[in-house]
Amino acid sequence: LRNLDILSQDVYYPPENFAHVIGNIYRSSFPRSENISFFKQHLKLKSILVLLSDDYPEELLNLYKKHDIKLFTCAIQGNKEPFINIQDETVNKALRIILNPENHPILIHCNKGKHRTGTIVGCIRKLQNWSLTMIFDEYRRFAFPKARGLDQQCIEMYNPNEIEHYAVERKWLPLNW
Amino acid sequence: LRNLDILSQDVYYPPENFAHVIGNIYRSSFPRSENISFFKQHLKLKSILVLLSDDYPEELLNLYKKHDIKLFTCAIQGNKEPFINIQDETVNKALRIILNPENHPILIHCNKGKHRTGTIVGCIRKLQNWSLTMIFDEYRRFAFPKARGLDQQCIEMYNPNEIEHYAVERKWLPLNW
Repeated sequence: LRNLDILSQDVYYPPENFAHVIGNIYRSSFPRSENISFFKQHLKLKSILVLLSDDYPEELLNLYKKHDIKLFTCAIQGNKEPFINIQDETVNKALRIILNPENHPILIHCNKGKHRTGTIVGCIRKLQNWSLTMIFDEYRRFAFPKARGLDQQCIEMYNPNEIEHYAVERKWLPLNW
Repeated sequence: LRNLDILSQDVYYPPENFAHVIGNIYRSSFPRSENISFFKQHLKLKSILVLLSDDYPEELLNLYKKHDIKLFTCAIQGNKEPFINIQDETVNKALRIILNPENHPILIHCNKGKHRTGTIVGCIRKLQNWSLTMIFDEYRRFAFPKARGLDQQCIEMYNPNEIEHYAVERKWLPLNW
C-alpha cells in the first residue's frame, strides 16, 4: 500500500502573521496552544525568541518544555511614546541568538508580529543586502494597518557591520533559503 | 585572509510582494529587469510560472534566456467581472508545474502578486493542511487593500484530492520548509 499519510485530515494552525523569513528562521504573532502541533510537526522548532519583557503564559511554557522547545528572551523597546531608539547592540543581541544554527529552527515573535518582529526581520534583510524599498515593502505588509515610520527608520539606521563580522567568522552567513 | 564576500555592498532588489512560499517555491508581483541578479544570485531560480495570458515583455524573455530560466505559462482567469469560477483543473495544471522538483527553484507571479498568485498559494496551503483562517490571513496580507471574497471562496471550494494523489505518487509531497 502506498504511503498516503499526507492525505490525513489533520488541520494545522499556524499563528497569525506567520511566515518563513529565511533558512531555518520563522516569524509570527504571539503563539497560542493550538499552534504547537504546527510548530512540532511542520517546523520542527527547536527554539523560540520572544522580543518582549512581559511574563510568558504558564500554559505555553509547559507546552514548550514538553515539546523540547527552548525559549529565549530579548526585550526590545517598541517604537511608541516615549520614544526610545532601539540600539544597534540590542538588535545584535537578538541576531546572535537568531543566526546561531544551534538554535535552529527558530521562531521570532512579539505580540502582533508587526513592529518588534518586523524591525528585527528588516535588520536580517540588511544582512542579505536587500534594497530598503523592498525591506519596507515587506515590513508594511506585516505591520498593516499600523506601519510605524520609526521602525523603518530604525531599520535604515541600523549598522550591520559588527554582527556581519561576528557571523561570517562563525560561518553563519550568508543565509540561504 | 577571511572570506568576507558577504560584506560586499551589492544591493539586491527583490520584486514587490516577494516572499518564500515553501520549499523551493517563491511568489511575487510581475518581475522587472533589476530583479534578475536577486533571482540568480540569491534564489538560483530555474523556472518562472506566469499566471497570465498576456504577451510577456521581450526584455525579460531575453534576460531569462540569458540566465537559463525557463518560463511556464498557465493562464488563470482573475476573479473580476464577468465572474468565471476558477476550475480545479486549472489550479491542478498550475500545481503540476509548481510542485515538480525538476522545475525548482520556481517563482510564481501574476501582475501584482495579489489575486491569482494568492489564490494558487492558498491552494498550496491546503496541501499543507493549513486551517482556512490562516490561509486567508496570508492571502489578505498580500492582497491588501484589494482582498477579494471570490478568491478566498475559490480556495475554500478547491478540492486538492486529485493533485494530492498525483503528487504523493511521485513523492513530491509532503512539502518541506
